[in-house]
Amino acid sequence: MKLYNYFRSSASFRVRIALELKGLPYDYVPVHLVKGEHKQPAYAAVSPPRLVPTLVTDAQDRLGQSMAIIEYLDEVYPQPPLLPSEATARAKVRALAQLIACEIHPLNNLRVLKYLVREMGVSDDNKNAWYRHWVRTGLEAFEAELAQLPPSTFCYGDTPTLADCCLVPQIFNGQRFNVDLSGLTRTMAAFDACMELPEFQRAQPSSCPDNEA
Amino acid sequence: MKLYNYFRSSASFRVRIALELKGLPYDYVPVHLVKGEHKQPAYAAVSPPRLVPTLVTDAQDRLGQSMAIIEYLDEVYPQPPLLPSEATARAKVRALAQLIACEIHPLNNLRVLKYLVREMGVSDDNKNAWYRHWVRTGLEAFEAELAQLPPSTFCYGDTPTLADCCLVPQIFNGQRFNVDLSGLTRTMAAFDACMELPEFQRAQPSSCPDNEA
Repeated sequence: MKLYNYFRSSASFRVRIALELKGLPYDYVPVHLVKGEHKQPAYAAVSPPRLVPTLVTDAQDRLGQSMAIIEYLDEVYPQPPLLPSEATARAKVRALAQLIACEIHPLNNLRVLKYLVREMGVSDDNKNAWYRHWVRTGLEAFEAELAQLPPSTFCYGDTPTLADCCLVPQIFNGQRFNVDLSGLTRTMAAFDACMELPEFQRAQPSSCPDNEA
Repeated sequence: MKLYNYFRSSASFRVRIALELKGLPYDYVPVHLVKGEHKQPAYAAVSPPRLVPTLVTDAQDRLGQSMAIIEYLDEVYPQPPLLPSEATARAKVRALAQLIACEIHPLNNLRVLKYLVREMGVSDDNKNAWYRHWVRTGLEAFEAELAQLPPSTFCYGDTPTLADCCLVPQIFNGQRFNVDLSGLTRTMAAFDACMELPEFQRAQPSSCPDNEA
């Protein structure tokens, strides 16, 4: 398999985690978002919407959207599972993942922040306030949801799931922008449990071949 | 089952479509977003993140996040299926759904538009330009993805899927804000095919008991 991705992209990071948890080798193809490489015609042939990540499967299918890719990996390579087996539990894990992927991350990705500054003339201070507002309120909602669940090592249960694949990149992102992460007890406990695992370490931006930090 | 929702909420509309397509009866519980009913303590007991929709299952489980709810419905009530049976095809449908639910809708929901105006002092004109920009560029990406797929009546294949459940509310929303929808040939053909079905008609905002239009 081949993964078109960018070391700092949260959505790319989610898929790298899933590939590592599944123990699946892949070719890492860097797409430099800040240099706009995803907007080049060559990349449109890989990803018509010109987004990262794109997974090219062994059958040469091109798959986009990180959560859809992770569900695909979980269906085709079921061990270890990244979703529980029971329907209600699966819904809970998917909802946690979507609380991040649909409620927090879309507001804070590179093209949105650029649009605020370049097209709407928003100041850097206001842009940063916007960023921190959505991450903080989003993670408070995530914590409120976790607080309703039985005690667990990870977001849901005692093995990492799709929810942890989404949480960890969001926390990295929040830390980079100095978001207040205090009081998010269960959220940060799940994050810490993830980061003790070599699979999460290998997937993180500083481990990527295109890392510039 | 019971669905806490709001007639004009796109995420609520997605779930109403899925319930109609499955032929599942449900109690409609309105939550008035504009009046802030979702922020009341009573609703936090239903939805800790205070979002709509929330589905309360027959077993009294509370499920949030529209795509997670629709996947749950598809697993527990498999007929008619809202996802294809083969893994790559499932990934394609989920990616289409997520192109809307993760790339377009989060930028344009009520709380985001409110924040732009109230907290960032953005003018109404700039707010509307922001809205139209993300819907138009997002739907162009959606159209580019559809253009790679074999001919079909709906977004993917000849029966409605999760992708159509997400597309139709987004088009309603775009029409309401006068977004330019020209040139989106396959996207609008899928939308039109959906709207010929009574299930989509019954789910639409003007059919809801809390409709104010």
